[in-house]
Amino acid sequence: MKKITVIGGGTGSFVVLSGLKKYPLDISVVVSMTDSGGSTGKLRDQLGVLPPGDLRQCLLALSDAPLLWRKLFLYRFESGDFKGHNFGNIFLAALEKVSKSYDEAIDTATYVLKTKGKVIPVTLDKLHLSVEYSNGKKVTGEVLIDENHNETSRIKKAYLTPEGKANPKAVKSLEKADFIVIGPGDLYTSIIPVLLVDRISVTISQSKAKIIFIMNLMTKSGQTSAYKASDYVNDLERYLGRKPDYILINDAPISEEVLSQYTKFSEEKVIDDLKEDDYRLIKGDMIDNRPVKKNSADVLYRSILRHDSKKVASFIDKIVNV
Amino acid sequence: MKKITVIGGGTGSFVVLSGLKKYPLDISVVVSMTDSGGSTGKLRDQLGVLPPGDLRQCLLALSDAPLLWRKLFLYRFESGDFKGHNFGNIFLAALEKVSKSYDEAIDTATYVLKTKGKVIPVTLDKLHLSVEYSNGKKVTGEVLIDENHNETSRIKKAYLTPEGKANPKAVKSLEKADFIVIGPGDLYTSIIPVLLVDRISVTISQSKAKIIFIMNLMTKSGQTSAYKASDYVNDLERYLGRKPDYILINDAPISEEVLSQYTKFSEEKVIDDLKEDDYRLIKGDMIDNRPVKKNSADVLYRSILRHDSKKVASFIDKIVNV
Repeated sequence: MKKITVIGGGTGSFVVLSGLKKYPLDISVVVSMTDSGGSTGKLRDQLGVLPPGDLRQCLLALSDAPLLWRKLFLYRFESGDFKGHNFGNIFLAALEKVSKSYDEAIDTATYVLKTKGKVIPVTLDKLHLSVEYSNGKKVTGEVLIDENHNETSRIKKAYLTPEGKANPKAVKSLEKADFIVIGPGDLYTSIIPVLLVDRISVTISQSKAKIIFIMNLMTKSGQTSAYKASDYVNDLERYLGRKPDYILINDAPISEEVLSQYTKFSEEKVIDDLKEDDYRLIKGDMIDNRPVKKNSADVLYRSILRHDSKKVASFIDKIVNV
Repeated sequence: MKKITVIGGGTGSFVVLSGLKKYPLDISVVVSMTDSGGSTGKLRDQLGVLPPGDLRQCLLALSDAPLLWRKLFLYRFESGDFKGHNFGNIFLAALEKVSKSYDEAIDTATYVLKTKGKVIPVTLDKLHLSVEYSNGKKVTGEVLIDENHNETSRIKKAYLTPEGKANPKAVKSLEKADFIVIGPGDLYTSIIPVLLVDRISVTISQSKAKIIFIMNLMTKSGQTSAYKASDYVNDLERYLGRKPDYILINDAPISEEVLSQYTKFSEEKVIDDLKEDDYRLIKGDMIDNRPVKKNSADVLYRSILRHDSKKVASFIDKIVNV
C-alpha cells in the first residue's frame, strides 16, 4: 500500500483526508500545532494544553466511527460556561491532562474515533507562529495573523516563537512516505507552521517522496493578498527547500455569486501563471459545487468555497497509482 | 443469574455498585435525577440538560474500561472556563445534545465505558426536589436542601417540582428484580427522590423482590439530624409503601478521630435501635478503614467515612445466594 503523508491541519486537510480515506492508502497526517484562535486558543491559555483543534479535525476526517460519535466530536456548545467550545477539543484537553504522554492521548483518541491512519502532531512543544511583514511590523499568534485582514504589506519572514523540535514520529512518517501532500490550506497559517519546525523541511528535502501541492483557490487578505499561483509556489519552496513535483490546480469556473462574496474582503481567484516546465501541473475541476450550509455548530463551513473531497482525492489517487 | 436493582445515585451507590460488579449478578441501577449542585447544577441551568453527575458515577462504578478512560471521566478541570466541571458530566451533556433520545445517549455512554449492567435514569423529566420542614419552611433544589445544615426542624414532606413520570425502563427493572438494594445514601437527597417519581413506589410495593436497605453510618445535619436507625426506616417506609426485608447495619467501632470530624458539624453515629422482629437485621463490619485520600479532582472522597465496597457487596451476595 502506498504511503501518503499529508501536511496541514485546517479545513483543507479535513477535505483531502476525508476523500483519501476511501482509497486503499496508508495515510498519515502531520499536523500544525500553532493554532491560537477560538476554542483552541482559550484551552491553550487557560489549561496550558497543546492546541487540540487541528488534531481533532484530522482525527475526525479519518474516523470510521458511527455518525453520532462524529457529531459529538464536532458539537459546539451554544451557551453557558462552555459557549463556543467544541466537545472534541475539550475531550483532547482532558485526555492530555490524564495521560502519561501526548502519544498516549493521541492513541486513545485514535482508538475511540476508529481513525484510519496516523494523526501526528508536528511537534510536542508549546509554541506560536510569528511573522514579520515587509514594513517591519511583527505579529505573534496564529489567530492574530489570520485575522490581520487589512495588512497590505507582504509577509517577509515566518518563524516560531520559541523554536520547536520535531516530533520523531513526524520525521519518520515523512522519511517513509511515497508521496507528501501539501495543502490545501492557508499558506502561512496552516502549511508553513509545519515546515518551520526544526528537521521537518530538511527531512522533506532529503526524502524520496514525490511532493503534491494543492494550489489555493482564492487569495487571503493580509496573508497572501493578490498572490498568483507562482507566488504561492515561490513562498512554499522557500520554506520547503525543494520544488513540489506535482501541482493540482482547479480550472473549473467559479460562479460570480461566490466571487462577489470574496470581493467584499478584497480576495480574488488565484491566477494560474505557472509554467509546465518546472512542475507537473494537474488541472481540472476540483471545487465543491454543493450549496454552502450555514451551521454554527460546525466549523467546516466557515469558508464559502472549498475543494471537493472526492474530486481532489481522485486526482491524487491517479498520481499515486500511475 | 439473580437480578439486583440498586436505587440511589450518589457516592454510596458508587461504593455498592463497585463491589457488586465483581459478582456474577445481573445488575441495574435506578438513578435519582434531582441533583442540582456543582458542575451538574451549572450544566442543568446553562444547557437545559438532565443532571449528568449521578448517572456518570453509576456508569463508572460498573465500568470495565481501562484505567485511563475511567480517570478521564472522573477528571475535574482546575482552571479556565471549565473550572470545577467534570469531564464525564460535559461528555453526557454534549451526548444528550447530539442524541435523538436520552436512551441513545445512555446506550452510547454504556458502550464507551464498557459498563456491566444497566444504568437507568428514574425519570426523563426535568424536575427538582422540594421539601417542607415541620416549621412550615419550604425549600426547592437538592443542593439547597443538602447544604441547609443549620436547619433544626425535621423534614415533614418531600415532593418533586414538577411531578415526574417514571422512565418505563426503571419500572421494568424494578418489576423484574429479585432484590432491590436501597442505599447507602442520604435519605432525602439520594433515595427518596427516586421513590417520589410516579409509579416507582407502587411498583416496588407490588414487586416480588426482597428489599435490602443499607443503613446510614452517620446522621446528616439539617436533613436527618439526630436520626436513630428506626427514624431512617420509618421515613423510608413512608415513601416506599412497604417494609424492607433486610437491613444491613454496621456494628464495627468508628474511631474517635473520625467521629470528632463529624461532631464539628453536629453529626453523629446512627444509633441502632431496631428490633429483629420487624426485619432481618444483618450486622457486621461494613466500614472502609483505609486512610481518607484528599483529592480535589475526585468527588468520591467528599465524605470522610464510607461503607466498604467489598464488605457490603459480600453481605449482599450472602443474602442473594442463600
